[in-house]
Amino acid sequence: MRPSIRIPLFLVMLLALAGARAQGGDPLPSWNAGAARQAIVDFVGRVTREGGADFVPPGERIAAFDNDGTLWVEQPMYTQLAFAIDRIRALAPRHPQWKDTQPFKAALEGDMQTLMAGGEAALLELVTASHAGMSTAAFEGIVRDWLAGARHPRFRRPYTQLVYRPMLELMAYLRANGFKVYIVSGGGIGFMRPWSEAVYGVPPGQVIGSSIETRYEVGAHGPELVRMNRIHFVNDKGGKPVAINRFIGRRPILAFGNSDGDYPMLQWTTAGPGARLGAIVHHTDCRREYCYDRKSPLGRLDRALDDAGRQGWLVIDMRRDWKAIFPAKNDANRGVR
Amino acid sequence: MRPSIRIPLFLVMLLALAGARAQGGDPLPSWNAGAARQAIVDFVGRVTREGGADFVPPGERIAAFDNDGTLWVEQPMYTQLAFAIDRIRALAPRHPQWKDTQPFKAALEGDMQTLMAGGEAALLELVTASHAGMSTAAFEGIVRDWLAGARHPRFRRPYTQLVYRPMLELMAYLRANGFKVYIVSGGGIGFMRPWSEAVYGVPPGQVIGSSIETRYEVGAHGPELVRMNRIHFVNDKGGKPVAINRFIGRRPILAFGNSDGDYPMLQWTTAGPGARLGAIVHHTDCRREYCYDRKSPLGRLDRALDDAGRQGWLVIDMRRDWKAIFPAKNDANRGVR
Repeated sequence: MRPSIRIPLFLVMLLALAGARAQGGDPLPSWNAGAARQAIVDFVGRVTREGGADFVPPGERIAAFDNDGTLWVEQPMYTQLAFAIDRIRALAPRHPQWKDTQPFKAALEGDMQTLMAGGEAALLELVTASHAGMSTAAFEGIVRDWLAGARHPRFRRPYTQLVYRPMLELMAYLRANGFKVYIVSGGGIGFMRPWSEAVYGVPPGQVIGSSIETRYEVGAHGPELVRMNRIHFVNDKGGKPVAINRFIGRRPILAFGNSDGDYPMLQWTTAGPGARLGAIVHHTDCRREYCYDRKSPLGRLDRALDDAGRQGWLVIDMRRDWKAIFPAKNDANRGVR
Repeated sequence: MRPSIRIPLFLVMLLALAGARAQGGDPLPSWNAGAARQAIVDFVGRVTREGGADFVPPGERIAAFDNDGTLWVEQPMYTQLAFAIDRIRALAPRHPQWKDTQPFKAALEGDMQTLMAGGEAALLELVTASHAGMSTAAFEGIVRDWLAGARHPRFRRPYTQLVYRPMLELMAYLRANGFKVYIVSGGGIGFMRPWSEAVYGVPPGQVIGSSIETRYEVGAHGPELVRMNRIHFVNDKGGKPVAINRFIGRRPILAFGNSDGDYPMLQWTTAGPGARLGAIVHHTDCRREYCYDRKSPLGRLDRALDDAGRQGWLVIDMRRDWKAIFPAKNDANRGVR
C-alpha cells in the first residue's frame, strides 16, 4: 500500500483561504468586485433563500465544472497529454514498432505539430495505448507517481498547484451553500480521481469524465479491474449532458466551462426551469496565464463566445475578474502526496 | 410539470420506524435477534469506532445494495419486466408486426414460458423496445404513471410498497452511521431513479444500473436527451464491479445481494483490505414472501450460496431473521406520488 495523503492539498489551501475570510468575511477573496462576482453571489443568494421564488432544495443544487482550462491550466497542452507522452516514452522499449508508427512516432520525437494535426483520433490512440494493460489500482499509482515528479514547463510547479485559486474559492463557497459540486471533464476519469479530492475537495464519485473499458478478472492477485485498450465513453460536447444524466440523474443548476466542448453542458444546464447560472472562463491573461480563444487547437472557444450573450451565460474575464490566478506557493507546497 | 412528491414515502416509513426506535432505541426493529443482526451491528461498530483498528473514514463508508430481490420483491417477475410487458401492449397498435415476432408475441399473449425460454436476450429486446423513443423526462413520467396504477398480482399493493422493511431500516441505520448508500442493480437506471429517493432515501446520483444509449438533441422542445433502442451497459455479474468503479471510484466496504448475479460485487467488496461485510438475502419465506434459490429462473442463487461460507458472506434467512417483511399498509399508503 502506498502512503495515503497526509494533509489534503485543498485543506491546506482552504486554511489559507479561511485566513482571508476571517479578516473580511469574504468567501471569494480572489475575485475582483465586478459583474461576474456579483452575478455569482446573486445567484447563490436567490437559490438558497428559503421561501423565495427561486429557492432550490439542497439535494437539487447540482454544480458542474469542466476541468481543463476551467479549474486548472490546459496550456501548452492538456496535463493528461503530457502524462500520456511520458508514458509512451517509458513504454517504448516494449513497443519497438512505435518509432515508425504515428501518432507514437510524433509523441516520441516531441513533434507536437504532427500530433495536433492528427486531431482527437490521434490523442485518443495515445491515451488508450498508454493508459491500458494494468489494474485500476496500478494505474492510480502510476498517476500519483507521475504527478509527484512532473513540473509545468513554464511555471515550474507541480500541475496540481496550477489550479485556479478563484475556482477553489468558488467551489468551497458553493459547498458551504449546500451545493454538490461535480467535475464533468473530457479528461480521463481514472486520471482525475487519484487527486480530485485532495486538490479540489471533490470525491471520486463526483468526478465524471472520459473512460476506457475495464474488465473484472479474478487472477493470481485476487479480483482486479483491468484497464483495456478500448474507449468506453468520450465525455465531450453532447456527451457531457448524456454523462450528467447517467451519473447524476439530475440537471445541474450551475455549470462552468471554457470551450466549445462545454456548449451542450451549458445549454442543457441553463435551459432548465427556474434560476440557472452558466459561465465561461475566458482566457484573457497572457501575462499571468495564457490568452487564447477562437483559434486555439486546445480549448477552442468560438461559438460559445458568440452565443454567450444570447444564452445569458456569464463570461469571466480572467485578467479583469481574477485578483489571483494560482494559490500562493507556500499555500500549496505539498503536491498530491 | 407533474406535481412533485409531497411527502416522500421513505419519510413516512421512517416516521413509523422512528416510533419503534423511540420505544426501545432499536435501529433495526424488524430484525430478529440472531447471528445476522449481530454481524451487522458488530460490523458497523467496528468501522465507526474512532481509533479502532478497523476504523473507516466516513467518505470511504460505501455500501452497495442490489435492488431486485434484495430491496424489493422480484417474483413472480421483475417489476421492470411487468412494466415492459404493459408498455409493449400499449405500443402494440403502432407495431403490428409484433404479434408475429418473438419475444413481442409472447409478451402480448402473456406467454411467460416462451418469454423466459428466450433468456436475457429476449428480456433485453423487450426492455429496449419499450423503453426507447422518448425523452428522458417523458420516460420518467411514464414510469411514475405506471407505478401509481400497477399492483402486484399476489399482494395487491403498489410495487413501491413491496420493499423490505428490514432493508429500509438497515439503509437508514447505515446512513445514520456515516455510510453512503448506493443501489447497484441489474435493473434500468432510468426505471429506478424516479422513485428511489422517495422510497429508499437514495438520490438519483447514487443509483447505478443498466442503461440504454441516450442522445443529446436540440429540437423544437429545446435541448433533450432522447432514449435510444440500443443497450449501453448491462449492470450484472462482472459488470457490477466495473460500474461501481466507474460511478463511485471507491470499493464498497459493505455489499448486499441475493443472487449469483451479485457474486462478483460481493467478491470485489469483501476482497478489499480491512473490515468488510458481504451478505446474501436468502428467500426462504414461502408464506410471507417467496421461497426460491438454486432452480429459480429469476434471482438464481446457487454458486454464491455454495461459496458463502468460504467467502465469509453472511446468509440472511428471511423467514428466521426478519420479523416483518413489508412496511405496514398504513405506513405506506401513499405510493410514489
